[in-house]
Amino acid sequence: MSFLQIGSKYPLPRRFKDCTYSVWTEFVDLVTTHKPLNLGQGFPDYPAFDFVPSILAQISDSKNDLIHQYTRGFGHPRLVNVLSKLYSKLINRSINPFTEILITCGAYEAIHSAISGLIDTGDEVVIMEPYYDCYEPIVRLFGGIPRFIALKNIDVNSEKDAFSSKSWQLNRNELENIFNEKTKLIILNTPHNPTGKVFIREELEMIGNLCKKYNVVCLSDEVYEWLVYKPAVHVRIASLPGMWERTLTIGSAGKTFSVTGWKCGWLYGPDYLIKNASIAHQNNIYTYCTPIQEALAICFEKEIPKLDSPDCYFQNLSIKLLPKRDAFMKTLINTGFKPTIPDAGYFVVADWSKQSSKIDLSSEKDVEEDYKFAKWMTKNVKLLGIPPSAFYSKEHKNLASHLIRFCFFKKDETLNQARDILTNWKKSLDGCKL
Amino acid sequence: MSFLQIGSKYPLPRRFKDCTYSVWTEFVDLVTTHKPLNLGQGFPDYPAFDFVPSILAQISDSKNDLIHQYTRGFGHPRLVNVLSKLYSKLINRSINPFTEILITCGAYEAIHSAISGLIDTGDEVVIMEPYYDCYEPIVRLFGGIPRFIALKNIDVNSEKDAFSSKSWQLNRNELENIFNEKTKLIILNTPHNPTGKVFIREELEMIGNLCKKYNVVCLSDEVYEWLVYKPAVHVRIASLPGMWERTLTIGSAGKTFSVTGWKCGWLYGPDYLIKNASIAHQNNIYTYCTPIQEALAICFEKEIPKLDSPDCYFQNLSIKLLPKRDAFMKTLINTGFKPTIPDAGYFVVADWSKQSSKIDLSSEKDVEEDYKFAKWMTKNVKLLGIPPSAFYSKEHKNLASHLIRFCFFKKDETLNQARDILTNWKKSLDGCKL
Ligand SMILES: Cc1ncc(COP(=O)(O)O)c(C=O)c1O
Ligand SMILES: Cc1ncc(COP(=O)(O)O)c(C=O)c1O
Repeated sequence: MSFLQIGSKYPLPRRFKDCTYSVWTEFVDLVTTHKPLNLGQGFPDYPAFDFVPSILAQISDSKNDLIHQYTRGFGHPRLVNVLSKLYSKLINRSINPFTEILITCGAYEAIHSAISGLIDTGDEVVIMEPYYDCYEPIVRLFGGIPRFIALKNIDVNSEKDAFSSKSWQLNRNELENIFNEKTKLIILNTPHNPTGKVFIREELEMIGNLCKKYNVVCLSDEVYEWLVYKPAVHVRIASLPGMWERTLTIGSAGKTFSVTGWKCGWLYGPDYLIKNASIAHQNNIYTYCTPIQEALAICFEKEIPKLDSPDCYFQNLSIKLLPKRDAFMKTLINTGFKPTIPDAGYFVVADWSKQSSKIDLSSEKDVEEDYKFAKWMTKNVKLLGIPPSAFYSKEHKNLASHLIRFCFFKKDETLNQARDILTNWKKSLDGCKL
Repeated sequence: MSFLQIGSKYPLPRRFKDCTYSVWTEFVDLVTTHKPLNLGQGFPDYPAFDFVPSILAQISDSKNDLIHQYTRGFGHPRLVNVLSKLYSKLINRSINPFTEILITCGAYEAIHSAISGLIDTGDEVVIMEPYYDCYEPIVRLFGGIPRFIALKNIDVNSEKDAFSSKSWQLNRNELENIFNEKTKLIILNTPHNPTGKVFIREELEMIGNLCKKYNVVCLSDEVYEWLVYKPAVHVRIASLPGMWERTLTIGSAGKTFSVTGWKCGWLYGPDYLIKNASIAHQNNIYTYCTPIQEALAICFEKEIPKLDSPDCYFQNLSIKLLPKRDAFMKTLINTGFKPTIPDAGYFVVADWSKQSSKIDLSSEKDVEEDYKFAKWMTKNVKLLGIPPSAFYSKEHKNLASHLIRFCFFKKDETLNQARDILTNWKKSLDGCKL
């Protein structure tokens, strides 16, 4: 039996139509091939995690044998207990650790479980662009119909050096028009990847009111909840009046403690919504890694009493990241980019229009301009960023044609290298080679 | 907006019909409520994992920062490399670590990804009973139609004290009749949970020939591959002529190194089948925990050179388990059960028919006799086992009506306690109270 004959009986199931591409797979391969300075994927290239791994080391070696065996499928008791304590305080209502929290394999599986447990064929799901790239394929996988609405930079024509992430806004009319009787879910991401926007209370109220009017669930992806630069303030939509009843909120250990490799996430919300997601989870991975859950529980137990102090890990991280953000913004501005200065997170979206007339991207065969630029840059300037059209639906990819996303959660040495690379590039573009 | 109104807009999607129940959730709750001696779920209650956790401790504390960040989505390079080395040797063909292996969140997610990546609405999947309980709901979730065939104990009427797991057999005619043009997949589980059967080469050839005749994929769940009691020998169906091309084989770190809490699994097979599963995985969890994958890679690197020696962890485990198996079989036989003596694994299925006339199960409200017995036993005898009808389709649950499953991967103290509990129970049934 030949490969082809077998293959022909085994195409991907139809539900995977339009769900096969991943920008990460493509760009991680580019890193391997071209060895650029990598400002692509969102994780630190230095030990920003502080004491966290040593907790995993300690419990792994401890005499508690059960730490290495299966734990409760919907979440390790010690972890759901401490998360209930934390979020009960933050949203000012008592959260039941055993019925209102689900532990998942990363925020990624939390997204999957929430959508899988809610969406049936023909249900509509509102997705804001740019979006974390798995939202769209996962919705399609379950027969959902994504309805896209782009955050628009209302300041796009200004003469300033840089944009504020606050300028990326939803148009109220557009949003109202997209909601209808078939809408089952809206996916919110605040703080927002990749713009760094922190939705303000009034914006969340606008979304919340539509959810209430149409009885829609809000899936609020808040993985960057602790990475907010003052004076911006993260507001949890679940804490707004009438919203707990219809909100599933997502968190991530990887983002919270700067250990993306731990891949532990969670969902919290009312029991009837958690139940749906739990059944999806039960038919998927059943239970997540016990030592990781135990270690995380201990990390949270350590930090919760310090919650409002600047040496709490959660508070401290954004304080430490701020100078990196500011230095990298300066680099971008000085080298001809127009960045959107993020109020949160460790990504920056930068506009490279000003340089576009000076570079010849014809060697790149991609359809989208931003893909051409990102690949050309990787190969010729040896700096890798991600093309943000990967975070837009087919019909709106043009909105990202002159953008690139960089991650600045890197050691100063890496950011200085990026500065040098971009400065030299700028000089060469300006015709004054070093 | 009341709970009910919200609930009514948010029923579980239709594809979850018949996918909500989990025997584990129900029986883990019974443990909490009744505090029986727990011989239910399959994991050791003592540190049988030897050096394994200390490796996790060491790498967690190491200076390699990247160990705590995202790794390659389809598998950590160091882990896929060592698995390729191991299985290339075992199935005598060279396995490409980057295209023919996928790392998952437990064997559970491997099962999910394999089925999700292959099965479309209306495809038929052959499932042998008794089965690992997630096979059926996962197949249904993706619109697959399960076609069940029960392993039958051909020795059921013998007068012996115990059965051999070899007596649990597939009927050739029945199996041939179940295959047809719509059959896309057969799920094999060898060594088999819960009977402890190790399929022999002739049985695998019978299955393989039907797969080749109907161009069917075989998903071979071999998580107990190392837990085989001599002289039984585990044969990998992927190593049979013409079977590599159509087999996805599943392994589990939890079972291999007795750390069920680590929840790392893998699939290996030809690239076009791994590709399908990888796309399912990419839309589900994207990547698994890095420190766990790194630690496992090191564990395998340590053990592979010792593969054929009795102090290799893989070989040693079954040597250590053998006396536990034999002691517990004696306990069962002496207390009126008729066990099937497993050739592999750490479960035993025991028939309690002989005692059934002496006990009154009318206090239990379940439909299935074995559920009544297992619950009655938990509450009244304080010993917990699992009712095997959970591992049968609706129409065949009666085949398990007088069976119970126990796990004997427990410290000697626990097994002695079980012996005492059962001995006292037997005495009380026999009317000679202590
Ligand atoms: C917005 C957003 N949601 C979810 C995730 C996934 O998080 P995790 O690594 O916990 O699966 C990411 C990771 O980059 C993210 O940026
Ligand atoms: C036959 C079988 N397959 C798969 C699994 C799941 O393994 P994991 O814990 O690696 O997800 C089990 C666990 O008991 C099992 O018995």
